[in-house]
Amino acid sequence: MRLGIIGGGQLARMLALAARPLGVDCVVVEPAPSPPAAAVAEVIAAPFDDRAALATLARTCDVVTVELEAVPVAALEWLERSVPVRPGPAVIAAAQDRLAEKLLLRRLGIPTAPFDDEVHGLPALVKTRRGGFDGRGNRLVRTPEELASARFELPEPIVEGLVPFEREVSVLAARSVTGEVRCWPVVENRHEHGILQCTMAPAPWLTPSLQAEAEDLIGRVLTDTAYVGVLALELFEVGGHLVANELAPRVHNSGHWSIEGSVTSQFEQHVRAVCGWPLGDTAVVGPSAMLNMVGEEADAGAVLALPGTHLHVYGKEPRPARKIGHVTVTAANAEELQHRIHATAPLVPFVV
Amino acid sequence: MRLGIIGGGQLARMLALAARPLGVDCVVVEPAPSPPAAAVAEVIAAPFDDRAALATLARTCDVVTVELEAVPVAALEWLERSVPVRPGPAVIAAAQDRLAEKLLLRRLGIPTAPFDDEVHGLPALVKTRRGGFDGRGNRLVRTPEELASARFELPEPIVEGLVPFEREVSVLAARSVTGEVRCWPVVENRHEHGILQCTMAPAPWLTPSLQAEAEDLIGRVLTDTAYVGVLALELFEVGGHLVANELAPRVHNSGHWSIEGSVTSQFEQHVRAVCGWPLGDTAVVGPSAMLNMVGEEADAGAVLALPGTHLHVYGKEPRPARKIGHVTVTAANAEELQHRIHATAPLVPFVV
Repeated sequence: MRLGIIGGGQLARMLALAARPLGVDCVVVEPAPSPPAAAVAEVIAAPFDDRAALATLARTCDVVTVELEAVPVAALEWLERSVPVRPGPAVIAAAQDRLAEKLLLRRLGIPTAPFDDEVHGLPALVKTRRGGFDGRGNRLVRTPEELASARFELPEPIVEGLVPFEREVSVLAARSVTGEVRCWPVVENRHEHGILQCTMAPAPWLTPSLQAEAEDLIGRVLTDTAYVGVLALELFEVGGHLVANELAPRVHNSGHWSIEGSVTSQFEQHVRAVCGWPLGDTAVVGPSAMLNMVGEEADAGAVLALPGTHLHVYGKEPRPARKIGHVTVTAANAEELQHRIHATAPLVPFVV
Repeated sequence: MRLGIIGGGQLARMLALAARPLGVDCVVVEPAPSPPAAAVAEVIAAPFDDRAALATLARTCDVVTVELEAVPVAALEWLERSVPVRPGPAVIAAAQDRLAEKLLLRRLGIPTAPFDDEVHGLPALVKTRRGGFDGRGNRLVRTPEELASARFELPEPIVEGLVPFEREVSVLAARSVTGEVRCWPVVENRHEHGILQCTMAPAPWLTPSLQAEAEDLIGRVLTDTAYVGVLALELFEVGGHLVANELAPRVHNSGHWSIEGSVTSQFEQHVRAVCGWPLGDTAVVGPSAMLNMVGEEADAGAVLALPGTHLHVYGKEPRPARKIGHVTVTAANAEELQHRIHATAPLVPFVV
């Protein structure tokens, strides 16, 4: 079995690391030199929409997937004529455009932040419809003047009302070719400067009713779009209920904990799904927390000296605000986990 | 950090898969074409004692290890003049020779089967001193005539008395550069036709006293030889006590369960140890069993459809009696594990 991946970053690297034991060889298309996936996958060095590169994928792969949503949809549609593309181009297109995404969520009855004409009053958020990530392409505006200049300066702006949330959470789930769905527990995400700093899995004080609500919401998207693979839904918890923030049609940073924390990691699950195999068990093996390593390398020996630490470096040049690795902390129970997080966090750089 | 490995088989492949997330790149020396490790490591295609290949390892690696004991000791000694070789050549030399191995074990007060002049009566086993594996190079003799012809026909024969064991078990442990030692629980091994078929981890009905005895025995070898890395000691359980069968100065087939079954896998632990880092936690996360896939590929989709299965294929051409992959089965408790093993075992080929 041979899996093509559009994009050769850390998500492709971890997909390939999970694919190898299943007998799946990966080939990535990536224009940047020495991408993280090069260590464990074949690399075709080309832009994502390079016709010759895509023709090679179509000819040599059994299935093609993506590690990022910013892929030209026309390229995916062209690929799809000769090889399965999972998840399909339509849902990737919706996730590329905040407006299309909101309209999809609304159509499925999934609550979202108010946007555009629904927004009354300030402060509010002005976001670019396309291409923002890790807090880039977002602007908080407090006055009518700031609103007007943000709308003028940001390309394809969309205005969102602020959601008075208690916390940010996310839910990840996978759907197989046969329509089987498996969902991981809801996790809590803490951001610093717009970049994910920590994921707690499961989310502390997660109730069965909140989990059921999350599974219902993500299940609607999976079923409606006939999705195949892992999908992430970022959410706000507001008054004990969930409001959708955004979709990621791929493995997601808030699912990295699952490598050690779940019976089946998001990476293995995505490979199982897109290759047409049955899904694995998404139960947790114990509480865990994921700490992103941003901007600077951690001292590996110091991190590994602490109990319950699991180091993942991506082979990227350090640069401020760049995710270059993560550390997952596991423990037997929530109290031990808290102690271990407090011991580990100071050793994991977060330089923005 | 760059790790050289002599040998490019499945053990090197799984070492490299564990090394990547730690930021360690692997390069293997392997004469066979398309070795399993090629998917995840750089390959130098050369015999294990090729001077130019070893010079490249010495020049480009921070440390060198082995994935098999059948490496010319002179080559390791030559390497050791310019790069750390872990574990060291002396203990690898002892493990290559059943006589030297027994003399080492005896010197450390570790019980072994009677051998040569100590053997009175038949049946007995005649083994080659060097190069036997997976039951090859061993012969059971029942008459004085069979004994005489086996001693004549097998190269460098050693005669061993039969040990009336209750079961075969093994213990794996690691020692770091600083002398820290971590031991996994004793596991039970079941062989078919001299080839490991199944490992149960921990060994059923493992008592604290048996575990303590195993840790004492392997600890003597680790300390006496100033060992660095993972060491396996194959044992017989006889009357509630342990008798040593043989040493493997490397990661070992009876430790594959640790990828899913332990907080730290044997592969990550070996990388930590030889790279000079602290060791990881060897606690089990739950009971598990490893089933070797021998001679024929399993149907991946069928195996993955069963609960608690973890598939590992090595990228080797199937051939009778050849280990080409394994499946680890995990479960919440011993009873569930038994049910899952019974469901999974028929789907894992064992063709000798």
